[in-house]
Formats: sequence, C-alpha cells, structure tokens
Amino acid sequence: MNILITNDDGIRAKGIYELANAIKNIANVYVVAPDSEKSAIGHAITMHTPLRVEEIDFCEGVKAYSVSGTPADCVKLGIEVILRGINIDLVLSGINNGPNLGTDVIYSGTVSGAIEGLIQNKPAMAISYVGKNILSEEYRKCGKYILEIVNKYKKRLDLLKDCVININIPNIKDNNIEGIKITKLGVRKYENAFEERIDPFGNKYYWMGGKIREFLQDEDSDIAAVEQGYISITPLYTDLTYYDKIGNLNIF
Amino acid sequence: MNILITNDDGIRAKGIYELANAIKNIANVYVVAPDSEKSAIGHAITMHTPLRVEEIDFCEGVKAYSVSGTPADCVKLGIEVILRGINIDLVLSGINNGPNLGTDVIYSGTVSGAIEGLIQNKPAMAISYVGKNILSEEYRKCGKYILEIVNKYKKRLDLLKDCVININIPNIKDNNIEGIKITKLGVRKYENAFEERIDPFGNKYYWMGGKIREFLQDEDSDIAAVEQGYISITPLYTDLTYYDKIGNLNIF
Repeated sequence: MNILITNDDGIRAKGIYELANAIKNIANVYVVAPDSEKSAIGHAITMHTPLRVEEIDFCEGVKAYSVSGTPADCVKLGIEVILRGINIDLVLSGINNGPNLGTDVIYSGTVSGAIEGLIQNKPAMAISYVGKNILSEEYRKCGKYILEIVNKYKKRLDLLKDCVININIPNIKDNNIEGIKITKLGVRKYENAFEERIDPFGNKYYWMGGKIREFLQDEDSDIAAVEQGYISITPLYTDLTYYDKIGNLNIF
Repeated sequence: MNILITNDDGIRAKGIYELANAIKNIANVYVVAPDSEKSAIGHAITMHTPLRVEEIDFCEGVKAYSVSGTPADCVKLGIEVILRGINIDLVLSGINNGPNLGTDVIYSGTVSGAIEGLIQNKPAMAISYVGKNILSEEYRKCGKYILEIVNKYKKRLDLLKDCVININIPNIKDNNIEGIKITKLGVRKYENAFEERIDPFGNKYYWMGGKIREFLQDEDSDIAAVEQGYISITPLYTDLTYYDKIGNLNIF
C-alpha cells in the first residue's frame, strides 16, 4: 500500500511525524507537506507564484518533500508530479494540532488536504487531535489509533470513493478512548472574533481570535462525540450542490 | 436594504465596481474587499497576522473599506466590526473575473466570501462572469442582470436562509442571454496542471496552470447552462456532512 501524508501545520510539526512513523508499519509512506504552517488556509491553491520542492530527511524509511505551498498544493503536486509513477492508495492529512469540528472544517487546511485527495480520485482522511500544548507521546498514541482505523478501512476503500472522512481524536491526556462514533458535523461559532489593537506607531489593527460560543450539540454530532471521549469520524461531501433546493429557487 | 459587497479580485477590480454601481440603485451598498487579488484562496482566514482596514474613495454613494485579508476575512470583519450597528440584509461576492463552475467552487475565493456571509446568518450570492480580457461594459451588463436577480430574490430571502447561490453569467460579448437556469455543479478537471521550469539561478520550480479537460456535462449542470447562453444559479450546501454515508461507515 502507498500512502501520501500531508498536513497544514508544516512538515516539521510533531503530528505529521508521529503519523508517518505509525503508518510506515503497514505501508510505503510518502510525506509531501508545506514548508511552514498553513492553518486556516481553507482550500487555497497557489496559482500566482511558483512552487518550490525540496526532498528532506524525515524519519527512517519515509521519503519526504517540503513544498512552498498549501496542503491542497502538496496533494496535487505530490500526486501529479513528485510521486508520478507511484500509485497512491490513500491520502492522510494530519495529525492536526487542535480540533477540526463542526463549521471549522470549512476553514481547515487539514480537511482541504484530504478533499484534494478525493478530487484526485484517492480515498482520503483528515485527522485532528483535540489537545492543547500537545506532547509527542500524545500524537504517538493518536498514531496508533489511526493505524487501527486505516487497517479497518483498507479492505473497504470502496466506502471512501465519494466522501472524505474527518477524524477527530478526543483529548487523551487524562482519559481513555471510549470507542469510535460515526457522526455528523456539529455547530461551532465564535464570539468577539476580533480584537482591536494599536500598533507601536499609533495605528489601529484587528486580530482574529474569539472564544467558542457554547451550543447544545446534538448527541450524534462530532462535537458531542469527542466531548464524551469517542473518536469521531464524519463523512464529508465534496459535491456542494444543494439538490433539494434546485426546484425551490426557480422564481423567474 | 443594506448590502455588503466583497470579491476576491481585490477592491480595485472592475467587476466589484460595476456590481456596486448597479446595486446602489436599490440598496445602501457597503464594499468591504481585499486590498489585493486573492483568487483561488478558498475559505482561508487570517489568524496569524493582524488585519488592517482603510476607508477609501470608491464611487458616489458607496462606502468602501479595503482590508489586508481574504474575502472570508472581509465578510467576517465587515459584519462584526466595520459595519457593526448596520443590519446587513444580503452579502454579494463578485463580479469575479472568470467562471466559478463545477469543482472550481471548492477553490474559489469568490464563493468563500458568500459562504462566510451564510455563516454570519446572511443570505449570500457569489457572482462570476465567464469572460476573458473583460471590458468594463461587459461587467456593467452583468451588473444589470444581477440587479434583476436580486430584485426577484429580495422578496424571497427565506429561500436563501440555508444555502448560498452561485451565479455564473455566460459570455455576453457576442451573444444574448437566453434566460436563467437553476443548476447543479458540473465536473471540472484540469490536465497537466503543473509546468516545470528553471529559474534564472538554475533551480527547478513548478507553476500551476493546466488546461480544462473536456467532459460530457449533464444537461442540468452549471457548465452546460453557461455554454448554452443561460445564466446559471446553483444552490450550495454549507453543511458538508454526507448523511447517507453515516450508516455505511460503521465497520468497527
């Protein structure tokens, strides 16, 4: 099995290292990832500047390429150019530093890496860890769970032929994993998203921050699942057409 | 009626100017748009650098703010900060220089500006023009069509409460508009997406380009509609959950 791994925290992040290190036990692993952090980059691609590629040392048995672009660039360039001739069976994006739950997926570079995999006709999974100040050993544990999940799905890759799966692993610092739930996206909104500040020259600027607003989440949502200690797996569409609306909108 | 207009070609692009100029006939128009081009930026948001805002001269009767961010930043910052206290009734994103059809919508900054509008609970439309080397008078004609469309939907904004509409206007240089069709997304793929080049110092780099691969498009797709001279309106989901898959994926 040949697996392409990318992320949005950059090729030097701990999460991608532990993921590659776990997955290399069952597959040939190729890492193609951004040379720097690209969080919240959404599905951006780089059309107006050139892309540079550099083969780098990563870990034993893993070929790795650093790209001066976004996660979507890495997957596109990885499959079409860098790894041409190698038949990639699966694309993994992660392990992200922090959750990608609910509405977050729209902004997520991690998820967009997986979506680009599907656009390239490859089964794909986005993987995030719901932690803060995360230690390598936590990512290492996450890597083991992902290895189990990949082992399950590798015999059923047909299930992933028209959807991306978005995996969130709950905080495991103090808790055990209760199991796995297949979920829908919950609702995530932020309040006071912008802080107004003054720079050293007296000019105003804004910085996006904001706290998550608490919502009562449906029991079958990804947010509820990780709160209860379950690994959440959410199937995501890439055909954005809202078919049920097509009839309604014709008011001309 | 209060309408916020953004785009991804930047605040100085012809398309946004003609859109604002048309729409100001029926609404108070507020332009909040990127200070430079942000095509193919997807739904990126700016979290790791500050955002600057500058009020600029635009056209008579229109307040306009240039923002050092993405289309999604502009809509978020526009509604939450710059235009706080003004009840925005509708968000328009465009008129984009070139189409946003089929799979393109995943990469599109124009579409992401509209999606951010819906995330902010505002009805929203993305607008693109299928032209090349576009003249101002073409955008001006597009502006008139959009004015008609907004006039139709403004009495039925309830139809847009959970979907974004993605509008593509066919090339009108040589043809008349045949009418309006409500469509689904077609399929768009590119071949030979990357050109390999050598820089002046002898180093390799890649530039994303690529030709559109021709597919037989379904008759009810956006791509077929604009080819036949129709304005295409496609309703888009923002809840990416692929509900039908939730049962299938549980193989644990």
